[in-house]
Amino acid sequence: MCESRPVNVAVIGLGLIGGSLLRALAAHGHNVTGYDLAPSTRVEATAMAKAAGAHHFADPSIRPVEIKGAWHVTDSVADAVADAEVVVLAVPLPAVPAVLAELSGFLGLITDVTSVKGPVRDLMGGLRYVGGHPMAGKESSSFLASDPHLFDECAWVLCLEPGSTGLDDWLTLAGLYTSIGARVVPATADEHDRAVARISHVPHLLAAALSNLIEDNPLAGTLAAGSFRDGTRVAATRPELIAAMCGGNADAVREAMELVLSDLSIFAESLDSVDELTGLLRRPGELRRGWPAAPGVPVEIGLDRDSLLALGRSGGWVTRVGDTAIGMRPETDLKSS
Amino acid sequence: MCESRPVNVAVIGLGLIGGSLLRALAAHGHNVTGYDLAPSTRVEATAMAKAAGAHHFADPSIRPVEIKGAWHVTDSVADAVADAEVVVLAVPLPAVPAVLAELSGFLGLITDVTSVKGPVRDLMGGLRYVGGHPMAGKESSSFLASDPHLFDECAWVLCLEPGSTGLDDWLTLAGLYTSIGARVVPATADEHDRAVARISHVPHLLAAALSNLIEDNPLAGTLAAGSFRDGTRVAATRPELIAAMCGGNADAVREAMELVLSDLSIFAESLDSVDELTGLLRRPGELRRGWPAAPGVPVEIGLDRDSLLALGRSGGWVTRVGDTAIGMRPETDLKSS
Repeated sequence: MCESRPVNVAVIGLGLIGGSLLRALAAHGHNVTGYDLAPSTRVEATAMAKAAGAHHFADPSIRPVEIKGAWHVTDSVADAVADAEVVVLAVPLPAVPAVLAELSGFLGLITDVTSVKGPVRDLMGGLRYVGGHPMAGKESSSFLASDPHLFDECAWVLCLEPGSTGLDDWLTLAGLYTSIGARVVPATADEHDRAVARISHVPHLLAAALSNLIEDNPLAGTLAAGSFRDGTRVAATRPELIAAMCGGNADAVREAMELVLSDLSIFAESLDSVDELTGLLRRPGELRRGWPAAPGVPVEIGLDRDSLLALGRSGGWVTRVGDTAIGMRPETDLKSS
Repeated sequence: MCESRPVNVAVIGLGLIGGSLLRALAAHGHNVTGYDLAPSTRVEATAMAKAAGAHHFADPSIRPVEIKGAWHVTDSVADAVADAEVVVLAVPLPAVPAVLAELSGFLGLITDVTSVKGPVRDLMGGLRYVGGHPMAGKESSSFLASDPHLFDECAWVLCLEPGSTGLDDWLTLAGLYTSIGARVVPATADEHDRAVARISHVPHLLAAALSNLIEDNPLAGTLAAGSFRDGTRVAATRPELIAAMCGGNADAVREAMELVLSDLSIFAESLDSVDELTGLLRRPGELRRGWPAAPGVPVEIGLDRDSLLALGRSGGWVTRVGDTAIGMRPETDLKSS
């Protein structure tokens, strides 16, 4: 099951991401302990562990390593992390400080899954921390929506800060996440935040502005079909969540919004010249038709910061970590229009 | 098959829309003749008619009414319209004048399927014309992609100009299209053009601006997932087509783009206040979650211009035309967040 050595992992927070990670790691032979603040979620996770062949041990000295493919649910953060080498904080950003307070004295490696990396990095001064962000999600966010295959082929950013991240710690997590099938993408927190502003946060704001166009125009709502449906889908996300992720990444979102506003203004000014507008639309069409880039051939990647960060900047990812790392660099040839 | 009386219809242009209409009308018992400028398309449409139980008659005096569920393909516009009561121009806007030149002397009713209605209306002075636009499409545009079920439940705008459209002509077409399962939406050409700017043309420009954000940022392209995929889907449309439809509706697109640019600027200015941004995002979230509106109960609609146009403006549509018209008015209660 586990190609690399089994790792003792504690997952704190068992929603969609944490629950899916708990199940994926256990299925791949790692020793996994989970905790959630909500007793009802602990009951659900325990019940599913039993169904997978395990038990909710009242005695935390009995480790789930004894039962293949299952996991262990505890009633406190302290119990969950007692034997852990790695702790994954799978809680929303506002809950991170409270969990960190319960981790005082923990000497192992800490990572997280929040969607903005700069603010979390700034909370972690002095701790062994590697920021993480799996590019996976679903409409629902509960443990019951969790899926051990959620991270198959998923791009999982692991932050490699030139000044602070331990390379060995980064490689430990890269080995762990590649072992469950994720594509591990090396990036600095700032590079990550600028990228997700472009491909996740700004799209939510565009979807909201587009949704507003059916206000006071029921005829438009009735005529709306595929292009409106797809262009507005994520506007149905809870407004608090959109505002928190955009506001938590305000500088990068503002920078990307300036690019979008500039392009849209130029398009609007070119409406009277179909030839000019056609020319402006050619490149975005090529970019969209060329996305996602086809994976290239596997390449060996040097196990040093510069090589790993260069791989991430070129759009590549790590697929396996051992004595060497194997990565993929996507084809850069764009399909023509 | 045909609830109302069978109508003799000629479809000029047998791409995705024309081909699907030819097949849908024939399947519902109307007498349908088709013509396409491309000999290869005529061959394809003839071959499919044979498969449906008919033949490509060299002698146009033999009408396809004799063969249930099939259609007749001719080698000229003149042959196609010889016995037609209704001619449907299913050609792109630039091809409309050439087809009209071949229709000189035709005294029946003319309609079209182009996506902008003002410019076509302006070409039709003095003819018996009702502008039409089915809100249906697919990536592919050839006869081979046609589908007789393309218009099931499809919103099909029929323009009712207070000054010029004959009410009887409008009702004839409304009866024809409801007979194949479309939802017929009454609107003026200007109302139509403003509505489609909002829900079809502007979404293409937003998708293009969003696609540009992965330029020079391969990392962003690798991290992009669902919100980018859906928000950019229509940017892959051929740039000539996007530019032609936006440029052909420039005034309405410009007006809708001003609304979008204003909203986006306000969102960008509110990034430092999560509460303010949450408040701004609440209404678009409600609008999106409330779309599409649930159909209400069937209502009887007066067969006069004012009643029909009021139905369209309220987001409603006609489902059946006989001695009276039956329409639906959608529920206006929005789902709360």
